[in-house]
Amino acid sequence: MKINIGVLGSEIAKAENLKIAEEVGREIARRGAVLVCGGRGGIMQAAAKGCKEEGGITVGILPTLDKSEANEYLDVIIPTSMGYGRNLLVASASDAVIGIDGNYGTLSEIALALNYRRVVIVIRGSGGSADFLADGKFGVMSADTPKDAVRKAIESVKVRGR
Amino acid sequence: MKINIGVLGSEIAKAENLKIAEEVGREIARRGAVLVCGGRGGIMQAAAKGCKEEGGITVGILPTLDKSEANEYLDVIIPTSMGYGRNLLVASASDAVIGIDGNYGTLSEIALALNYRRVVIVIRGSGGSADFLADGKFGVMSADTPKDAVRKAIESVKVRGR
Amino acid sequence: MKINIGVLGSEIAKAENLKIAEEVGREIARRGAVLVCGGRGGIMQAAAKGCKEEGGITVGILPTLDKSEANEYLDVIIPTSMGYGRNLLVASASDAVIGIDGNYGTLSEIALALNYRRVVIVIRGSGGSADFLADGKFGVMSADTPKDAVRKAIESVKVRGR
Amino acid sequence: MKINIGVLGSEIAKAENLKIAEEVGREIARRGAVLVCGGRGGIMQAAAKGCKEEGGITVGILPTLDKSEANEYLDVIIPTSMGYGRNLLVASASDAVIGIDGNYGTLSEIALALNYRRVVIVIRGSGGSADFLADGKFGVMSADTPKDAVRKAIESVKVRGR
Repeated sequence: MKINIGVLGSEIAKAENLKIAEEVGREIARRGAVLVCGGRGGIMQAAAKGCKEEGGITVGILPTLDKSEANEYLDVIIPTSMGYGRNLLVASASDAVIGIDGNYGTLSEIALALNYRRVVIVIRGSGGSADFLADGKFGVMSADTPKDAVRKAIESVKVRGR
Repeated sequence: MKINIGVLGSEIAKAENLKIAEEVGREIARRGAVLVCGGRGGIMQAAAKGCKEEGGITVGILPTLDKSEANEYLDVIIPTSMGYGRNLLVASASDAVIGIDGNYGTLSEIALALNYRRVVIVIRGSGGSADFLADGKFGVMSADTPKDAVRKAIESVKVRGR
Repeated sequence: MKINIGVLGSEIAKAENLKIAEEVGREIARRGAVLVCGGRGGIMQAAAKGCKEEGGITVGILPTLDKSEANEYLDVIIPTSMGYGRNLLVASASDAVIGIDGNYGTLSEIALALNYRRVVIVIRGSGGSADFLADGKFGVMSADTPKDAVRKAIESVKVRGR
Repeated sequence: MKINIGVLGSEIAKAENLKIAEEVGREIARRGAVLVCGGRGGIMQAAAKGCKEEGGITVGILPTLDKSEANEYLDVIIPTSMGYGRNLLVASASDAVIGIDGNYGTLSEIALALNYRRVVIVIRGSGGSADFLADGKFGVMSADTPKDAVRKAIESVKVRGR
């Protein structure tokens, strides 16, 4: 059974964070995991692009019923009618999540992932919700590079079980 | 963008309906669509098996957070914490659904799919919820064979758009 | 602990069914139960009006975050961001549901209520989903009057437990 | 239309925070608002008790279908089958939320409330998620007393609209 790794972040993102997201996506593909995301632009799109280009499987869970909202790098598109409520599905669907920068949405996905006892890793220095929780007290792990983040995600899931 | 086709039916199923489900799965793969199901045994497993063996992509949306509940023919497993509430995700995730026999769960997925204006097809003669709605007044279409069902699903989605 | 009774039906409804819904609401209040509905117009509004005028407690679970969508007879308004997905909450929130006429939405709420092992009663002769399931094989009960429907709902909940 | 105020916090709570929660509940009742909570023990129960004793209306949204999980101070019990997913309903149902201490669950409810553009207030000095977000950068407001928290909640909702 493959490990699902969620990549969390906003539609509007800094160029350097988009590069990080793409590299996280590539690394997820290289390690044979499945990428899960919110299906739209920005961080979600960059991560899906990286994963797809490296031959990985990509899944996007949309807030609306409209598949045309999805970015172009998804193998599987899951429309929902739940609005921001889809954030709970991104969290439940992932064995581990990696947060890059981000605002309210990312914060809610991280908190829901913690609720579901998922592995949570944030990219230190990426800003926003990720930095807010780096070195935090909620059991969130920090990583300094995409490679480090994906490695920690996979090793932690293997230790904890799925 | 690929078409998502949901296959709906119960965990406990008659041998002839399992054969139908497997053949529906094969046909979904042959036509290049993605199979969506509830991720567990019976009709869901048979359909995923058929689709996987023919080289298709299979997705299972589980009622619980426990991936070990999933059948072994899934490329993508989406655990949820929603119980029967996951039925609404099976419906929203599918451009078209095909119902085989089935009880309350299948009836709810068909009704939710109708709510979401999805294409709904039932296998006539398979029993249960499917027969209850065959030739019904809710805009449900009927099909007599797996091939016919998948063909109608795909053609109707193309006409309606996604 | 009070019994919650869901009243299910469409926003667009025949005058005679609105009268039935209002009387169902009154009877729910008289029997000391809480009325649950989808919070909008038509059958939902008529039932809430009847219940409120008789001094009962009324709850509406909305598809959107916008409380201004709610009808004016609700003590408690629960906005959601789930669209038709709120139908599963109307079903889960109710110990018993009473269906009056109705289309896809009502059918999905009845089927979800059956999934959740709730008591399901339909008003025979009201049309639509209710008549489609009257005397059906899914364990749905039928009633000929509002008084009969509420009595059966409450007695069945007491027998089954909540 | 009444204002809904969610009170967020854990089942296991310090005595001083239970006192705060109860006083928040009383103040919600005095101001004519409806109390929304997760329906269980600890902070949720204390807030419901305070509100009920002051004659207010109390609503609890449960993670499971089992109403016997609910605390004894609720006028309206909404069972769900969504597990921690019910947190999104506590957030969407509330025009404003008040966080007291709390762990992952409270953090997720606060983040979801921010997503839904609800007013968010935390009791400064209560510990946990509340203190983690006090004076934070996510638009969370802080309050030093129950009275101050409820006043800020109601005034902010009136300014923003519902």
